[in-house]
Amino acid sequence: MFLQRATWPEVESYLERSTGIVVPIGSTEQHGPTGLIGTDAICPETIAAGMAEAGILVGPTLSIGMAQHHLGFPGSITLRPSTLMALVGDVVTSLSVHGFTHFYFLNGHGGNIATVNAAFAEIWAQASLAQRSSDLRMKMGNWFAGQRVRALARELYGDADGSHATPSEIALTWHAYPDLARDEALDPVRPPDGPIRDAADYRKHFPDGRIGSEPHRAKPEHGKRFYEAGLADALEDYRRFAGADSR
Amino acid sequence: MFLQRATWPEVESYLERSTGIVVPIGSTEQHGPTGLIGTDAICPETIAAGMAEAGILVGPTLSIGMAQHHLGFPGSITLRPSTLMALVGDVVTSLSVHGFTHFYFLNGHGGNIATVNAAFAEIWAQASLAQRSSDLRMKMGNWFAGQRVRALARELYGDADGSHATPSEIALTWHAYPDLARDEALDPVRPPDGPIRDAADYRKHFPDGRIGSEPHRAKPEHGKRFYEAGLADALEDYRRFAGADSR
Amino acid sequence: MFLQRATWPEVESYLERSTGIVVPIGSTEQHGPTGLIGTDAICPETIAAGMAEAGILVGPTLSIGMAQHHLGFPGSITLRPSTLMALVGDVVTSLSVHGFTHFYFLNGHGGNIATVNAAFAEIWAQASLAQRSSDLRMKMGNWFAGQRVRALARELYGDADGSHATPSEIALTWHAYPDLARDEALDPVRPPDGPIRDAADYRKHFPDGRIGSEPHRAKPEHGKRFYEAGLADALEDYRRFAGADSR
Amino acid sequence: MFLQRATWPEVESYLERSTGIVVPIGSTEQHGPTGLIGTDAICPETIAAGMAEAGILVGPTLSIGMAQHHLGFPGSITLRPSTLMALVGDVVTSLSVHGFTHFYFLNGHGGNIATVNAAFAEIWAQASLAQRSSDLRMKMGNWFAGQRVRALARELYGDADGSHATPSEIALTWHAYPDLARDEALDPVRPPDGPIRDAADYRKHFPDGRIGSEPHRAKPEHGKRFYEAGLADALEDYRRFAGADSR
Amino acid sequence: MFLQRATWPEVESYLERSTGIVVPIGSTEQHGPTGLIGTDAICPETIAAGMAEAGILVGPTLSIGMAQHHLGFPGSITLRPSTLMALVGDVVTSLSVHGFTHFYFLNGHGGNIATVNAAFAEIWAQASLAQRSSDLRMKMGNWFAGQRVRALARELYGDADGSHATPSEIALTWHAYPDLARDEALDPVRPPDGPIRDAADYRKHFPDGRIGSEPHRAKPEHGKRFYEAGLADALEDYRRFAGADSR
Amino acid sequence: MFLQRATWPEVESYLERSTGIVVPIGSTEQHGPTGLIGTDAICPETIAAGMAEAGILVGPTLSIGMAQHHLGFPGSITLRPSTLMALVGDVVTSLSVHGFTHFYFLNGHGGNIATVNAAFAEIWAQASLAQRSSDLRMKMGNWFAGQRVRALARELYGDADGSHATPSEIALTWHAYPDLARDEALDPVRPPDGPIRDAADYRKHFPDGRIGSEPHRAKPEHGKRFYEAGLADALEDYRRFAGADSR
Ligand code: NI
Ligand code: NI
Ligand code: NI
Ligand code: NI
Ligand code: NI
Ligand code: NI
Repeated sequence: MFLQRATWPEVESYLERSTGIVVPIGSTEQHGPTGLIGTDAICPETIAAGMAEAGILVGPTLSIGMAQHHLGFPGSITLRPSTLMALVGDVVTSLSVHGFTHFYFLNGHGGNIATVNAAFAEIWAQASLAQRSSDLRMKMGNWFAGQRVRALARELYGDADGSHATPSEIALTWHAYPDLARDEALDPVRPPDGPIRDAADYRKHFPDGRIGSEPHRAKPEHGKRFYEAGLADALEDYRRFAGADSR
Repeated sequence: MFLQRATWPEVESYLERSTGIVVPIGSTEQHGPTGLIGTDAICPETIAAGMAEAGILVGPTLSIGMAQHHLGFPGSITLRPSTLMALVGDVVTSLSVHGFTHFYFLNGHGGNIATVNAAFAEIWAQASLAQRSSDLRMKMGNWFAGQRVRALARELYGDADGSHATPSEIALTWHAYPDLARDEALDPVRPPDGPIRDAADYRKHFPDGRIGSEPHRAKPEHGKRFYEAGLADALEDYRRFAGADSR
Repeated sequence: MFLQRATWPEVESYLERSTGIVVPIGSTEQHGPTGLIGTDAICPETIAAGMAEAGILVGPTLSIGMAQHHLGFPGSITLRPSTLMALVGDVVTSLSVHGFTHFYFLNGHGGNIATVNAAFAEIWAQASLAQRSSDLRMKMGNWFAGQRVRALARELYGDADGSHATPSEIALTWHAYPDLARDEALDPVRPPDGPIRDAADYRKHFPDGRIGSEPHRAKPEHGKRFYEAGLADALEDYRRFAGADSR
Repeated sequence: MFLQRATWPEVESYLERSTGIVVPIGSTEQHGPTGLIGTDAICPETIAAGMAEAGILVGPTLSIGMAQHHLGFPGSITLRPSTLMALVGDVVTSLSVHGFTHFYFLNGHGGNIATVNAAFAEIWAQASLAQRSSDLRMKMGNWFAGQRVRALARELYGDADGSHATPSEIALTWHAYPDLARDEALDPVRPPDGPIRDAADYRKHFPDGRIGSEPHRAKPEHGKRFYEAGLADALEDYRRFAGADSR
Repeated sequence: MFLQRATWPEVESYLERSTGIVVPIGSTEQHGPTGLIGTDAICPETIAAGMAEAGILVGPTLSIGMAQHHLGFPGSITLRPSTLMALVGDVVTSLSVHGFTHFYFLNGHGGNIATVNAAFAEIWAQASLAQRSSDLRMKMGNWFAGQRVRALARELYGDADGSHATPSEIALTWHAYPDLARDEALDPVRPPDGPIRDAADYRKHFPDGRIGSEPHRAKPEHGKRFYEAGLADALEDYRRFAGADSR
Repeated sequence: MFLQRATWPEVESYLERSTGIVVPIGSTEQHGPTGLIGTDAICPETIAAGMAEAGILVGPTLSIGMAQHHLGFPGSITLRPSTLMALVGDVVTSLSVHGFTHFYFLNGHGGNIATVNAAFAEIWAQASLAQRSSDLRMKMGNWFAGQRVRALARELYGDADGSHATPSEIALTWHAYPDLARDEALDPVRPPDGPIRDAADYRKHFPDGRIGSEPHRAKPEHGKRFYEAGLADALEDYRRFAGADSR
C-alpha cells in the first residue's frame, strides 16, 4: 500500500491494523560515469514497492539526502544536515498526529546515516526535555547492509563492490529500469578508495565519482537477485521492528 | 530527461545547451474521501514527464509540501514553512553550483505558493545582503492555474471544481494511474467553501476534506485532456521563462 | 484606539468587547526619485489611524518588511523572510496570551505578502503538529488592493499606476505629510515593467527604482480620496473578518 | 532627517557627508496602571526627532523589544531574544550595503540591552569567523541613562523614580502626547522592587506592573526638561561615537 | 560536590536538600602575551571548587564562551551568541527536568554577560509565551565583580588592572597552576584602552591582546587572596540567591 | 600541550610545526548506580592528557554531549543535536581562523557519534555549497573503540562490558580519580540490553541506568591498562590522521 495512492479513509483503516510505516530515503547524487543520479533513491523505493505489495504502508520517497561531498559533479543535490533533520522531524511529527508510532526509514545512501540518526535524537530530545514520554520508535534500515544483500554482493563482486557507485546498487537500478542498463568499460577498472571530505576534495581524489567500485561488473540479471535479497532483508527487519514483540 | 535517471556526464552535456531545470513540487495530503493523498505531487510530476520527453531536465519531485491544515486527516504530512524554505534553498543552491540558473518549480498545491515564494526571496536576499549579484532566476508555475487548464476546468465542471480535491486534479491522477479511477457518489454533493486556518478548524468546517468541489464529476477521459492542456501551459510558460529573451 | 497610547487596564477593557486587533505592516524601501522611503509603512499606518478612530485597537506599525530587491538603492532595509516570519510569529503569540484571537495585518507592501502568509502558516502549523486546536485567525489585508482603492486608482491614473512607486501610494503619503508633496517631472515618464529578482538585477532593470509607474501624476488632493477609499475598504474587510459571523 | 520621509537620492546625498544613523528602539509593554504601553518606544523616538532636526539621519523606530516578563499584562508584546537579534542583524546589514558604518541604537527599554548587545556580537562574529575585517561600529545608547537625564530624575524624584514605569519616562511621553497626561493617585504609592524573571512571576510580585516607581509624581512640565536633557545627552554621545575621532 | 564526579543516586539525594546548582562559565581566548588562554574558565572553575567543598553542587565548566573579538589571536575560540544561547538553554532545561530550579552561572568573562542574560530571557520567554509559570531562577555572577575581589584588585593594582588580561585574573590562574607563574616584563607597560568591535579591529588597536592592563604586576601570592575573596563573594551571592528567602 | 594553559604566542609557535589539534568530547550523563556522571568526558580527557604530554595540542574538553535518553536520571544533561552541531561548528571554524586544519575529536560517548559526524558534514557543506575548497579535515576517534582497548575489554570482561556504564570506562575513571573507586555489588548482576529511544522509555527498560554491563567487575588496576591502551590507540590514529601522508 502506497500512501501517495491511498485515500485518507484507507489510511484510517490501515491504522486500525498497524501503526507502522516505511519511508524510503535516498539521495540525488552522481554515481560514477555510468550510474544513475537517482540510484540511492531508486534502490530503496524499489524494495519498498515490494513491502507495499506485502501490505505495509509506504510513504513518499525522500529523494534528496545529505550529499555535500558529491557537489563537484553535475546534477548532485544536497540538503545540509540541519535541513534534512528538519525534514525528517516534520515527516515523523506529522504522521504521529494520525497515530503512527513505528517509522522505518529504508535508506539507500551511507551519507544519510549520521544525519538521520541525529534527526531521530532531535525528535526524542523534544520529548525528553519536555518531560514527556514518547511513543515514537524510529529506525533506519540500510537496504545495502542487510545480511542477504551483503552475502550476494560478496558472492558476485567480492571487494570490487567498493563503497560508492557499487555494482550492487547499479544492478538494482537496472532491475527497476531495465532500459537503462549499459555495458560500458571504465578506466581505471578500480578507482581509489579513501576518506570523504568536502566536494572539492572528493572530486580531486575520486575524479570520476566512484570510490573503490567496479560498477561495470553489474549485470541486469543481478538486479532481480538484489531486489529479492533486499526485500527479504527489509521485510524481516521491518517485521521485527514493528512487531508486537518489538523490544 | 529525468535527473534521477541520468548520469553526471549526461547532466554535464545538458548544461552546455541549457541551464534550466524543472522541479515538480507537490504535497502529501488528504484529497477528500476519494482523491489520492499524493494528488498534488502526482499532477505536476505527470506533466513534468511530458516536459522531460520534450528534452527539458526534470529534477526529483518534492512530494511533501506545506499542508498543515490537512493534518486532521490520516496520512497527511506537512513541512513547516521554515523547513520547506530550507529545502527549496538547498535544492536551488546545490544546482546553482553546477551552473543551473533557471529554476522552474512546477507546483500542484496552493498551500505551497506563499512559502516557496518566500523561499525564493530568502535565496535572493542572501545575495542582496552580501552585495553580490545573483544570476538565479526562480519561478513557480502552478499547473492548475494555466490558461488552458482553467478553461478546460470551467468547461467541464464550472464552479463545481471548487478549491480542494477538485475534479480537475483528480481526473489528472486517473490519467497517471488509470487503475485507481473510481465512480463514487459523495454526500453532500457540494461541500462548503471558506477560509483555511489550522488543522482542527479545517476538519471541523470541511468534514470530509473537500472544499467546494465535486470530485465525482471527474472522468478518466478528462484526465488525458488535463494532461495535454497542462503540458501545453507548462511548456509555454517554461520556455518563456527559460528562453534567451527571458526578461 | 492605539495600543501604544493605551494603558494595560484600557487594553483589558477593550478585550471585553473585542479580541481583534489591526497591525499595520509596511516596508522601508526606495520609492523612486520622489517617493518616500517609508511610503509602504505610512500608507497603512495612515489608514489604520482611521480605524483607531472607529474604536478598533491598532498595534504598533511594523515599519520594516521584506524588501531585499530594493537594497540597490540607499536607505532601503530588508528583513530576510525568515526574520519577518519570526517577528510576525512573536507578535501574534504575544497578543494571543492576552486573549486576542483576530489579527488583521493591514499591509502596504506587495513584497510582504508571501512571507506574512508563510508566517501565518508557521503559526498554525505549530498548533496542527501539536494536535492542538488553535483559536487564532489571521488575515492580511492590502490597503492598495481594496475594491474602492483600485477603482479610484484606475479612474485617476489608468495603467500609469504601475506596480512600484505608484501615484496612488504617493498621493496617500502626501495626505499624511502635506509638506512633503512635490511637483517634479520624471524622465522617462514611464519606466519599464518586469519581474523582480535580487537587488542588483532590480537596479539594473529599474534604474530609478520605479516599476511601470508615473508617480508625478499624484496630486495632494488625490491623497484624501485614497485615504477615504482605503479606510472604507479596510473597515469593511476588517468587520467581516472580525465579526461574530466571521466564517 | 527621517529615513522614512526621505527619498533614496536624499539618502545618497546624506551618505556623502555622514555614514552614521540613529535607530530608535523601544518596547511595547505595560507601564503600570497609568503609563502608556508604547512608553519605551515613544521616549527614544521623541528624542531622536530632535536629533533629526539637528541633521542626523533617524531610521524607523523598532517599536517592539524584548519584554517577555511583561506578558502577564494585556497589550504587552515581546520578541524572543533570538528574533530581536535577527531583526537588529538584518537592519544593520541592510544599511551597511549602502555604506552606513555607524549605528547608534537609541534605546528606551532596559530589557533590550543584553539582547541588542548580543546582536552586535553576532554581527561582528560573522566577520571575525569569516576572517573579514568589519567596518561596522554599533553602539546602544540608553536615553534614560545619560548624565543629564539621571541628574534630572534624581533632582525631581529621588529614589521614587524606581525602575519600571518611572515618572521620568512617563513625563517624557506627556511631552510627546500632552493630551494623554493624567493626574491619578496610585495605591500603593510605592510598589515593591526586586528581580525580574518570567511573566507569571512578574505579575505575582508586581501586581500593577510598576517596579519601585511613583509615576504619579510626573508632571507634564517635567517632560520638556527630560526631552532637553535627553537630547543633549544623546547628541553628545552620538557625536562622540560618530565623530572623525571616534575611537 | 562536583556533578561530574557524582553518581546519579548522589544527585538524587542532593536534590532532596537543594535544587540549586553552580555552573562555571568562561572562555577560551588570548589573555595577552603571558596570560593563559583558559584564564576565564580556570578562574570561575577554581572558585567553584571551593563552593563544591562547601557542599554546593557544581556542574561541568562551560569552557568556551563568546569571544569573537579575540579571534585575531591564535588559540582563541568563540561561540556565536546564538550558539551560546542554545547551549545555556539546553543545560538549564536538562537540569530542570530533574527538579533543579536555581541556576547560578559563575562567570569569568565579560564578553559572556550580554549573551547569557539574553539566553535567560529566551528561556523565560518560552514559558511566558506559552502562558506557563516558570519556576526557574537564573543568575549570572561575575567572580571578578564581587565586592571583595574588586576591593582587592584596587588595593593591589589600582587602575593597572585594566579590563582584559588583568593581573587579578592572572594571579588567580597562578593560584590554580603555580607552575605556570612567570615574571615577565611587557612592553608597553600599559597598553591602550578602548571599545571592542570585531576581531580585526581588536588586533589592530590592542596588538598584544591586553586592554589597559599590566598583568606583570600579578604575583603568585596574590592568587590565593583572590581565591579567598572570590570564594567569599561567590558564596555570599549564591546563598542569597538560592536561599529560602531568595526573593 | 594544553590550549587552556598556553599563551597565544605559544599557540602561534605550535602552528609552525603542526596544524592539528585534539578536542576531547564527552557527555554529562548517568553511568549507572556507581559510575560517575562525567565518565564520558573524563575518559577522553584523561587519554588526551597523555597526547598533550606527547606534544600534541589538546583543546578544552566539550563535557556535555547528546544524551537525551539519559534525562530520566538526575544530573544528566543533554544538548539537542542541533545545539551540539552549532557548538562543534563554531569550535572548528574559530580554530580554522588561526590556521588549524586537522581536528581530531577524541570521543567518550556513543551518543555523540551521529551528531558530531552530522556536524562535520554541515561544516563541509558550507564550503561545498559556496563552491569553496575546504582544507579542513575532521575526524572523530572513539577511545573505547580502538583496537587495543577493545582487546583489553574483551580479555578482562568478555561480554560483561555491555554497552553503557561499562567496566572499561569506569576503570579508566578510577585511574583518573583513584579516590572514587568503589567495590559495590549491583543487582541484577547483568542488566538488560536493547534499543535506545527517549528518556522515559530508557528509564523504563534500564531502571538503574546500565545497559548490559557489569561495572562492578572494574578494578582500579585495570584503569591504568585502559589508559595505556587508549593512549596508544589514540596516538596511532591521530598520527595517521594528522601526518603528512594523511590521505
Ligand atoms: Ni549510492
Ligand atoms: Ni490538490
Ligand atoms: Ni510601495
Ligand atoms: Ni519603560
Ligand atoms: Ni579574562
Ligand atoms: Ni559512557
